[in-house]
This record gives sequence, C-alpha cells and structure tokens, in this order.
Amino acid sequence: MIFIVICCFLGIKKTASRILFLFFWCSLAISAALAQPDPLPSWTAGEAKQSIVKFVSAVTESGGRDYVPPSERIAVFDNDGTLWSERPASVETRFILDQIQAHRPRLIKAKSRSWLLAALRNDVDSILEAGELAFVELTMATHVDRTTDEFDKVVKDWLATAKHPHFRRPYTDCTYQPMMELMNYLRANGFKTYIVSGGGADFVRCFSESIYGVPPEQVIGTVIKLRFALRDRKPVLVRMPKVNFVDNKAGKPVAIFEHTGRRPIAAFGNSDGDLEMLQWVTSGPGARFGLLVHHDDADREFAYDRISRIGKLDKALDEAKTRGWTVISMKNDWNNVFSFSPPY
Amino acid sequence: MIFIVICCFLGIKKTASRILFLFFWCSLAISAALAQPDPLPSWTAGEAKQSIVKFVSAVTESGGRDYVPPSERIAVFDNDGTLWSERPASVETRFILDQIQAHRPRLIKAKSRSWLLAALRNDVDSILEAGELAFVELTMATHVDRTTDEFDKVVKDWLATAKHPHFRRPYTDCTYQPMMELMNYLRANGFKTYIVSGGGADFVRCFSESIYGVPPEQVIGTVIKLRFALRDRKPVLVRMPKVNFVDNKAGKPVAIFEHTGRRPIAAFGNSDGDLEMLQWVTSGPGARFGLLVHHDDADREFAYDRISRIGKLDKALDEAKTRGWTVISMKNDWNNVFSFSPPY
Repeated sequence: MIFIVICCFLGIKKTASRILFLFFWCSLAISAALAQPDPLPSWTAGEAKQSIVKFVSAVTESGGRDYVPPSERIAVFDNDGTLWSERPASVETRFILDQIQAHRPRLIKAKSRSWLLAALRNDVDSILEAGELAFVELTMATHVDRTTDEFDKVVKDWLATAKHPHFRRPYTDCTYQPMMELMNYLRANGFKTYIVSGGGADFVRCFSESIYGVPPEQVIGTVIKLRFALRDRKPVLVRMPKVNFVDNKAGKPVAIFEHTGRRPIAAFGNSDGDLEMLQWVTSGPGARFGLLVHHDDADREFAYDRISRIGKLDKALDEAKTRGWTVISMKNDWNNVFSFSPPY
Repeated sequence: MIFIVICCFLGIKKTASRILFLFFWCSLAISAALAQPDPLPSWTAGEAKQSIVKFVSAVTESGGRDYVPPSERIAVFDNDGTLWSERPASVETRFILDQIQAHRPRLIKAKSRSWLLAALRNDVDSILEAGELAFVELTMATHVDRTTDEFDKVVKDWLATAKHPHFRRPYTDCTYQPMMELMNYLRANGFKTYIVSGGGADFVRCFSESIYGVPPEQVIGTVIKLRFALRDRKPVLVRMPKVNFVDNKAGKPVAIFEHTGRRPIAAFGNSDGDLEMLQWVTSGPGARFGLLVHHDDADREFAYDRISRIGKLDKALDEAKTRGWTVISMKNDWNNVFSFSPPY
C-alpha cells in the first residue's frame, strides 16, 4: 500500500521538496510501527518487571533454547489477594454473609452452631476464626437445593449492587491494575490464562470473563457436589450439601492436573495457599516462572504477610528465595494498584 | 497479487488470444475458490447428514434466530463406541489386562478376588461380567503409587505397539472416519470439541490430541484420586487407590458443568451411559443437537444395541424419538466406517 502511494507520488513529478516530504512521512510511519507501547505501564521499571519480560521473551522466541509452543503456554493465577483485594474479608465471605442475612428467618430456626450464630450477627471476625469448615458450611446453609442456574443468578444480582466496604466501589472494580495488564500481556504472547482459586469455582465463574477475560472453562476452584435431576422432564443440576473438592494448598496442583492434564509453566499467587502450586509449576523442565504478590502497601491497599488470618504469606515467602520466584512489592513495583487512586 | 499479474500481462501487449487465455485462467481461479468441498464425505446424503449441516448453519448464521456466539459453541463427544470401536472390549480394558499380565508375579501373591484371578487368566468375559468396580480395582492394582508422568509413559508405550484383535491394526487407527470429519467440521465452524468419556481422563489424554485433535484440557473422564508429594524436594502427583469420580450416566452432565461452567449445545453418544448428557445438553434454550451412533453394521464393525454388556443402547434409543435426537445407522449413513476397509 505504502509502496503504491510512493510510486504514484513519484510518478507525478519529481521535486526535492516532495521527496523531503515523502521521507518525513515514511519515517513517521515506520517509527509508529516500530514503537511498541509498554504492555505493563502500571509496573515500575525494576527487577520484577524485567523478570516477567525476560521469561515471556525466552519462551516465545522461535528457535530459542527455552521456546515453548503456544499450546503449552499455560499460566495459572490465584484469585483472592493475587488478582483482587481479599481484605478485610474475601468477596465470597461477604457474599455468603449477605446471603445469611437474606435467609435469616429460616436460619434462626435451624441455628445449631456457634459460627452460624456469628454469621447471623454479621460477625466476620468469628467466621474467619472458625476457619474453612465454617465457611463451607455457611455456603451450604444458604444454597443447598438450588440449581446451578439459580445460584448463578443470585451471585450476579449480588455483584451488581454490593460494594467494597473500604474502597467504596463495586467489588468487580477492585482488581489489581498491574495484574490485569500482566494477564493481557501473557495472552497477547499466546498464553492461556487460568484462575485457580480457593474460592468456589461457580462463584468465580460469575465474573471471571467480564472482569479478567478468563472464560468459565478456565476457572478451577473449590467445588461442591452436584446432583443431576429431572424436574418435569427438564434436566437440572442441583447443589448438594457436600464439598467435592477444596482447591487450596496441595489441592491446587492436583486440581490443575485433573482439569488440564498439563503442568503450567507460570504460576502467580500471594499466600501459603499457593505454595504447592508454585512448587509444582516451577519445578517442571525448561523455563518456568513463579511470582508472589507481597501485600506491603498499607496506604494504597493493605499490608500483611507472616501473621495474618487471611492470605498468610510465610513459608512461601521463605521458599521464594531458594526456588528463585519473583516476589513483588505492591508498594515499590506497582505505579498503580487499582484503576482508581486514594483517597477512597 | 492476481491484480498485479493481470496488469503486467495487459501492459505488455494486447491481443485477443491473450485476453481469452486470461479469461480462462481467471474463471478457473474463481471457480476453485467458490467450490466448497464436502466437509463430510464419509456421510451418505440423507436425513442424518442434513440434520447436522442444518444445525451448524443455524447456530453460525450471523444475525439468525438461532445464532450462538463462538465461545458458547461447545460440543461434547463420548469416546468408546462414539469416536472409536469399543468391541470386543474397550481399549482401556485391553490396556488394563495387558498391564495385569505385566504385573503378574506381584499380583499372583496378592490375589484375593475372583476377577483378579480372571484377569490373570486373561478372561475378558468374566471381567466384563464383574462390571465397573472390578474394572476400576484392576486399574488400581496395576498403577497405584505411580506418578502421573510415569503413568503417561506406560500408556503411550503400550499404545505404540498394541493392536486391535479384530481389525489387526493399532488401536489409534480404529477411529470412525465420519466422526473425525464431523469433529473437524464443527471446529471449522468455531466449535470447541470436548471428549466426555467413561474411561480414565488420564488414559484418554494420552492420545486425544494426536488422533482427535482434542487437547488434554478438553478431555473429561473418570478420575482417580491424586496426591501431591515432594520426592527429593521435587513435587510430583501420585496416583492413589481411590476413585475420585466416575464419569458415566448422570455423572457426565455433572462433570461437564464442573469442568466448563457451561451447558454445551451439541452432544454425541452411543449408549445409555450417554443418556443424561444428551438430555441435559439438548434441553437447554435455543438450538440444540443430540446424536446417537447406532451400531448396526456387523460387516464393517459390530452390531449391538438393546441387549449388550458393552455400550448397551436401550433407553436412550427410545428417548431419541421423543426428544428429537438424530440416530445414525452406521450401515446406511456412513460411506466408510474407518480409514481402511474390510476384509481386516
């Protein structure tokens, strides 16, 4: 096209000024084509950003020593604390507690456990104290016997209005801008991005595509048992009061392999719940990449690590050194945390 | 490019013969570009073929009433008896029995059940008689404590040499040619094809990509429990003596939803084991497609349906009428069954 334009232009009349203009025009076009906009503008220039770009270049360089074919370029991301904020309580915890309130009359009659009472009091601290089991049982208390379609609607309706108590905007806005850029950057380089969450797969699937660009079939998470049933000859899948699989800690590599039959080449997490996933992913053959998001920014988000009830980062932080994982400081490695800025 | 060639040609000298030659050359190029080769040459012209083409046209017609966006064009295929032959015993049954022989010395000591004795005698009939449980336990007897990588190698080594007892060629050659064309046709129309097998997911994944073009992450199947372990600080996944999920009958829709978070729009099966999958897939909103492969070709393959120990097709065959599923006759609807022809 450019060539045709040049030919026509030269064909009409040759003058020095026209050639000069043409030269200027061509240089402009060439430099625009060559200038690659920074795919990671929210990342400060530094070792963390360099390590990401270096890895991606290595696995995508055709004919290079570390080249990985696109079908095997799989990257797995933890969700809470890695892609969006998990404080003061995870989004799913808030969802469940709001649901408990919605089911209040029925649950008051059925109450039997201390954490159900705590939930009815909207006492988040006691729920977090009670741990995983309490959380799972609360989920069941509100959503047993719902069909998968019904549950999907409840979650989407809740997300449409619920707001983060600290950042004062919809939860779906509270995603980390640098991590969104990172996911896009990886996908632009032929990677398939998966979410591997300790949260419910069916919960995360309600927003994974719209906010992260990750389709539901690339979401791996905790699953409760489903039952196939015919209702008026119409088949439905019904949620049962039984956890099928908890996708946390050593469960993460198991779930990834069961889901994909592959070992990913890059893993991103933020807590000890991601330790085994990072160990497994980064110890495969060839180039591998592991990254931990370190929450050290009390001004723009929250600061927590070794002693924390949510997203504790202790063993994984130690192991990062010996295994060569990139530990990023939210404070120093990120220009922006969110698409919005404090004060909130 | 063509335009440039024409221009050069015309520029040299205009003569009537040259224009005629050019006209001939262009018509040839245009007709070659317009002629669509039949994407389903192994299907005879008839209702079955028409129903497939009609459905694909409906869901891909931009702006049409039944249009489905590519991300939701998901098609699920049973494997044994739908994509390849399951007679005289399924390929995985043969694999397990060969493995039993390979582990003979150890198993003779450990033998405790009648079907293990039967397996040691290579008595396929008794194994099939004993049913699903026997099959699963035989699998465990041979592959417990292997890592996933080790198991993968054992299966691939076996497939490289094992031959089908009736067709006398590698099992991986015994795929149904019309179904291979159908999968390609769907993919060419933006569909994502999944295998949903009652067989082991890790077994099917060893050949799904090379023979069906289905990557491992699009294989759903029966899974045994895996355990994450560190061996010399190296993480591995180890097979445990416990079935995690049986992907058959009502398990199929459950597994599809857990894996993908979606309800596919087309399902392909051949037995009552696929009944619930077909019911669920075809009763969703919008255009849906269900198909049953009916084994009625004793000359080119096998003939069996209502009374059969393998791939029994009884209830699903009745329900096909009321639910509007396409039932294809291998004998009448397929020009070829395999890429090779009898005598075998």
